[in-house]
Amino acid sequence: MKKNILVGQSGGPTAVINASLYGVIQEGLSHPDEIGAVYGMINGIEGFLSGHTINLSAELSKEDLELLRLTPAAYLGSCRYKLPENMDASVYPLLFEKFKAMNIGAVFYIGGNDSMDTADKLSRYAAMAKEDIVFIGVPKTIDNDLPVTDHTPGYGSAARYVASTVREIVLDASVYQQPAVTIIELMGRHAGWVTAASALARKFPGDNPLLIYLPESDFDMEAFLNDIEGALKKSTAVVVCVSEGIHDASGRLVCEYSTEAQVDTFGHKMLTGCGKLLESYVRGRFGVKVRSVELNVNQRCSSLISSLTDINEASEAGRFAVRAALEGVTAKMITFEREEGADYSIRFGLTDVSNVCNKEKIFPPHWITGNHNDIGPEFTAYALPLIQGQPQHILEDGLPRYLYRKEQGLLP
Amino acid sequence: MKKNILVGQSGGPTAVINASLYGVIQEGLSHPDEIGAVYGMINGIEGFLSGHTINLSAELSKEDLELLRLTPAAYLGSCRYKLPENMDASVYPLLFEKFKAMNIGAVFYIGGNDSMDTADKLSRYAAMAKEDIVFIGVPKTIDNDLPVTDHTPGYGSAARYVASTVREIVLDASVYQQPAVTIIELMGRHAGWVTAASALARKFPGDNPLLIYLPESDFDMEAFLNDIEGALKKSTAVVVCVSEGIHDASGRLVCEYSTEAQVDTFGHKMLTGCGKLLESYVRGRFGVKVRSVELNVNQRCSSLISSLTDINEASEAGRFAVRAALEGVTAKMITFEREEGADYSIRFGLTDVSNVCNKEKIFPPHWITGNHNDIGPEFTAYALPLIQGQPQHILEDGLPRYLYRKEQGLLP
Repeated sequence: MKKNILVGQSGGPTAVINASLYGVIQEGLSHPDEIGAVYGMINGIEGFLSGHTINLSAELSKEDLELLRLTPAAYLGSCRYKLPENMDASVYPLLFEKFKAMNIGAVFYIGGNDSMDTADKLSRYAAMAKEDIVFIGVPKTIDNDLPVTDHTPGYGSAARYVASTVREIVLDASVYQQPAVTIIELMGRHAGWVTAASALARKFPGDNPLLIYLPESDFDMEAFLNDIEGALKKSTAVVVCVSEGIHDASGRLVCEYSTEAQVDTFGHKMLTGCGKLLESYVRGRFGVKVRSVELNVNQRCSSLISSLTDINEASEAGRFAVRAALEGVTAKMITFEREEGADYSIRFGLTDVSNVCNKEKIFPPHWITGNHNDIGPEFTAYALPLIQGQPQHILEDGLPRYLYRKEQGLLP
Repeated sequence: MKKNILVGQSGGPTAVINASLYGVIQEGLSHPDEIGAVYGMINGIEGFLSGHTINLSAELSKEDLELLRLTPAAYLGSCRYKLPENMDASVYPLLFEKFKAMNIGAVFYIGGNDSMDTADKLSRYAAMAKEDIVFIGVPKTIDNDLPVTDHTPGYGSAARYVASTVREIVLDASVYQQPAVTIIELMGRHAGWVTAASALARKFPGDNPLLIYLPESDFDMEAFLNDIEGALKKSTAVVVCVSEGIHDASGRLVCEYSTEAQVDTFGHKMLTGCGKLLESYVRGRFGVKVRSVELNVNQRCSSLISSLTDINEASEAGRFAVRAALEGVTAKMITFEREEGADYSIRFGLTDVSNVCNKEKIFPPHWITGNHNDIGPEFTAYALPLIQGQPQHILEDGLPRYLYRKEQGLLP
């Protein structure tokens, strides 16, 4: 019997989470004998629980779909909702009742570690309750911190945004003759992948950013100030990149040197401003002009500076997920495996969602070089293929035309 | 007798100051009977005084020039150097000796208000000393605050960056169901032009940013918090844009409200922007999730999100300046005059540099609407033509290929 499929987006947005959604819908539409409607959850599993869904295959035109592919953030909306550990919780039968009422045969959840936790729990409940619905996770995170997969959709675009923007800031910072330090704070609470991408901004040996600090190394303020002193002897324009999550040997976050930390619903600390803090230390020590720049949410939502390679891979991951579901695969996340050889190519694979959920892949410590203040060439070789290609947007009033739901963000 | 020409860049960089340099060089090269070499000052008039020049017509290839056109920041380097008021100062004969030693017939200075002051003083000295050298100012500033001209090269790109980036942040901010406020701090100490461009991010009536505050209106914290309260009744995702230079009726900058608020553990004062400060006020009052984002230097140096219209106009301004100089014009700045009619077009004009230097054009107060918290449709009509067109960069290792001097920013 023909079944419908259901897709949701969860966790922080990226520039390509909608490209994965596009892939799921396109592949869903291309199996008319096996798949009926493609439904979307509005605001993830949380919104679905409240009955918010959309019939994507009916409501989106061909042209809409092409716009969706290059639209950043999450078209369906997102949530940060953790399903209970207890499989006896009433939410599970409630969810499966809703799935069955919509004749859902497969659920696709696009997200990061926390979202894979949702896919894991739903598939475990399905196995327990002998429900004939498959659950596939489609990876998404700019942090690139999911295990098993070579990299995650969203990372290439964040890396390209960081490399490109840091390059522009380096040019901007180099125009004056007076010594100056620019500190760029980049995303990454536990994993330094996004910050490491700043190394891709360099164009010759000795080029800026001269110093790069990741959370995988303990941060020492005196060593940092010595590094700055050395850098100021080489360049009038010193550009430094730091992860938001840098911390000292005791585990204390550098951003906490100044403020009380706040905690989000998942118990993650909400960080603000290690760049600002370092700015005041450098100014206090050296008396030079110092500026700190926090690249902030644009690292994850800039579509104009996203990577075409990333967009294409994200879309293909969505398509592959649907094909896997049609073969009866469940409780798996799509992975990228890098082919051996000089030319970059990937093949898609599958791993148990339980291998991924609530786990983190950190930046390889042996790729951190110098006095814990630089990135080695292994990373460049790894990351360069991921930032290739400039997407071409349709412009409307001078800006990229995006697909959005007007009601998103508005109160009913 | 064939003369050489000399060009310098001064003040803060923009995405298109090199497009104007490109225009000066290209036009210089196209008059081989009248113009010899095109020289550049390295680090503006300050570097020129120290003997730092470059023979641009000899050193840059055709391909270099095409890269220069789309390279942000200042290829020649910049300075913030004010010539003395006193025309008897020894710096003037020194400068003119250097001009004559290089057989310079015309000097082009690309910059904003302060740079026009330099052009003004040099041309006044030339008139006084009966020196046969002409001085032309080529306007440049993202702030759009130069009088006489309809707009300034650099503004269109900053406006496109702001509109595009705010649009992406609005999409990013709208994915969750929980009420949240995002405060975006934009450049503009005295003039609100850059911040006003955030209004171009709206796609339908009632769309974000719901509130926009410029420095041309006095900022009142209670009125602001009332505005937020009202906005939170309409939208779960409230996006607010503020100029860095907003101030209260007493003239006190909002960013200065915090001077005693944030001190790190070592007693260093942490200077925060007005966005960060408003974030804490809104969180304190409403207890909702609040994020502040400062777009920072990318507003002026993002080439990937620059405006093709702006690039073309900046380049044409450089060309027009050279043609004016060949006609003997001096002590003038290039202006843009908007043609009447439904379709946007400009013609170039000239105004005395003394009409421009040290003066500022503020945002028209009657274009500020609502309760001093919104921007009217006159601005959209004015600004939309300036943000049209996406430049196409040559990519190298996934990033735009730029033209840079390796030694820029490095110590000798």
